[in-house]
Amino acid sequence: MTDDSAPARPGLSRRGLLGLAGAGVVGAGIGFGIDRVVTPEAGAVSGAAASYPFYGEHQSGIVTAAQDRLHFAAFDVSDITASELEELLADWTYAANRMTTGLGAGKYGPASGPYDSPPDDTGEALDLPPSGLTITFGFGPSLFDDRFGLAGKRPDALVDLPHFPGDALVDTLVGGDLCIQACSDDPQVAVHAIRNLSRIAFGRASLRWSQLGFGRTSSTTRAQATPRNLFGFKDGTANLRAEDAETAKDVWVQPGDGASWMTGGSYLVSRKIRMTIETWDRTSLREQERVVGRTKGEGAPLSGGTEFSEPDFDATGRADAPLIDTASHVRLAHPSMNDGAALLRRGYNFVDGNDDLGRLNAGLFFICFQRDPRAQFVPIQLQLAKNDAMNEYLRHVGSGIFAVPPGATADRPIGAGLFD
Amino acid sequence: MTDDSAPARPGLSRRGLLGLAGAGVVGAGIGFGIDRVVTPEAGAVSGAAASYPFYGEHQSGIVTAAQDRLHFAAFDVSDITASELEELLADWTYAANRMTTGLGAGKYGPASGPYDSPPDDTGEALDLPPSGLTITFGFGPSLFDDRFGLAGKRPDALVDLPHFPGDALVDTLVGGDLCIQACSDDPQVAVHAIRNLSRIAFGRASLRWSQLGFGRTSSTTRAQATPRNLFGFKDGTANLRAEDAETAKDVWVQPGDGASWMTGGSYLVSRKIRMTIETWDRTSLREQERVVGRTKGEGAPLSGGTEFSEPDFDATGRADAPLIDTASHVRLAHPSMNDGAALLRRGYNFVDGNDDLGRLNAGLFFICFQRDPRAQFVPIQLQLAKNDAMNEYLRHVGSGIFAVPPGATADRPIGAGLFD
Repeated sequence: MTDDSAPARPGLSRRGLLGLAGAGVVGAGIGFGIDRVVTPEAGAVSGAAASYPFYGEHQSGIVTAAQDRLHFAAFDVSDITASELEELLADWTYAANRMTTGLGAGKYGPASGPYDSPPDDTGEALDLPPSGLTITFGFGPSLFDDRFGLAGKRPDALVDLPHFPGDALVDTLVGGDLCIQACSDDPQVAVHAIRNLSRIAFGRASLRWSQLGFGRTSSTTRAQATPRNLFGFKDGTANLRAEDAETAKDVWVQPGDGASWMTGGSYLVSRKIRMTIETWDRTSLREQERVVGRTKGEGAPLSGGTEFSEPDFDATGRADAPLIDTASHVRLAHPSMNDGAALLRRGYNFVDGNDDLGRLNAGLFFICFQRDPRAQFVPIQLQLAKNDAMNEYLRHVGSGIFAVPPGATADRPIGAGLFD
Repeated sequence: MTDDSAPARPGLSRRGLLGLAGAGVVGAGIGFGIDRVVTPEAGAVSGAAASYPFYGEHQSGIVTAAQDRLHFAAFDVSDITASELEELLADWTYAANRMTTGLGAGKYGPASGPYDSPPDDTGEALDLPPSGLTITFGFGPSLFDDRFGLAGKRPDALVDLPHFPGDALVDTLVGGDLCIQACSDDPQVAVHAIRNLSRIAFGRASLRWSQLGFGRTSSTTRAQATPRNLFGFKDGTANLRAEDAETAKDVWVQPGDGASWMTGGSYLVSRKIRMTIETWDRTSLREQERVVGRTKGEGAPLSGGTEFSEPDFDATGRADAPLIDTASHVRLAHPSMNDGAALLRRGYNFVDGNDDLGRLNAGLFFICFQRDPRAQFVPIQLQLAKNDAMNEYLRHVGSGIFAVPPGATADRPIGAGLFD
């Protein structure tokens, strides 16, 4: 680890330490009666599990093989200055880089350091390996209002999402100035990351909404088996995959796309989609397969073949009816029905307890990445929202769109391009 | 698998099938135009992962090595008769036994069977191994009111929990006629179990409250490392362990304990404990360790040694102050301070999004098992609720107590002893 010796960013800012310590107390060095030897890096955690580098050309957590668990958080930035925002992003970069290698969020870790100050890490991941942790940051449209002088930096592609037919959005589940997607194969590691980043932001940004996802519903590489959503179907078979030649141009912002600070970045759209699973569970197997357009067991298109067979939307059966219903999800979401537009999906199943009618509050936290939402998510979702037979069993209650900047390096924190 | 051929319970009851199909439709055999061969057991899932037998002297999920994930559900029984309740428990037994072996909840599974009826399994666990799934059933005090003629069967040990000082219970998170604890190393498998059992109960019992837990906080066997709670500390080091000689008499109801149908059973107490982690995170390492009575890193008692060293509550340091504070959690919860009373703990960390002040709604879903709550949970919790320094950082918001009957066999469903 060399981050502590990187010249531009030797550690958390004074405000970052303040966040850790709470109002009015600086975390390090002011304790009285320190009767324990300070042991930097004692919070280090080692482990054999997968770990992905935080620094790089692109942020990790996009084409990275989808981990099993998710903690996603959207933040509102408090009344701070542009340079304080820049400092927050530098602090987040510092801590995120540490945590993705299994270290604590701060240099002392959860169980050492000044004994009369709060630890600079909360500790619940102390004995856990990184478990493939990735931390991915994004900026919502509202960050580009007049508070931070960033209006001129707003990319055209970072549109305000239109109202889609059937939207039932809940104010408290929509938007956000900033977002963090933490994915890991161990939910405790993902929760630890969001908690500590939220803590570092104390006084500078606060949680607006957040979501745990317990099971991935997408494969982002061909080596991963296609998982099932809470309708019981394999989901995202026609998803873009990291290794496919055309994926790069559909996911990463290219030079010349406008807003040059976004080159090498991507756009994230999140949708919290509640599934009315009790209603779904009472429909026949025939109807379920008609709605999806695939078989429930194998996941093969109803036109025949196996899971990865191309659907044949022209194939017909009895009475010349199409084998794949024209209102089926697989047909309406298919690139061939959307001028070739495709998405890199990275969604997760969720269950948030139950409602007061005794129904599980369950569904899909949909996440997708793309080069330009105007050409990808928006038209695809307009098509689905109007015509998808699946809408009868869905309710979109949360929504977010975020510009995900390119990756950081040891001396250029996340979002540095905003302040050039 | 022999359950389908067991004489007493060849499959789901007619009402169980009704639950799967929704009001007014019987699941099997009434479909028109069935154009697919019915393939019993096609929903079977095989896998190399751990599986625990459902049938046995005791229910599994109690002394079973604690799995990583939890879905817990409490149910209200609808306006049904005693014999319909008996049938519900038989249906649950049938489906639970199947699911713990990796089979679908019903005999056809999610992707085959009558094509014009709803599948008898929802399918999201179709490709997943059992992943150590255990399903544990319990009966709340309210089941023994006058609705089902069971008042005479209520065990004296199934007390109504007293009000504990500081309780901040929320009505909708308390009680329940029935409970199901589903534990698995894969959260999707645990969610699948609760969802399908809830579905089978349609019209007979409905969800009252439910809880997902993402990380175990207890070790129930000595082979398991002690995990950390969201305070960042190892939790339950002094917990009873399955292999300890004295555990059996502290966990299982013994002959002569009263309510003979409970012999071989246990009593489950659940407490949803919200942790005010933002406040905790701003306290010094010194204060955190004082409150817990152990070091944060190693988990050793502050009287010295390593994690499993016995705490020495008489040891003193500077100015003759006790090294382990008299109000510390480790001291007040210790069997030596509770007339030897101990609990088998099986709790899980939870995060349920955040509140509207931007604080994570997080904490511990505490579960314990014991032979008699009057001699174990109740006096220990009274002691803690009055004196534990940790109370400043806790709020008990949910609560349940359930009689967990002995294990089922192929011809005696869960709770059969209630109806003898």
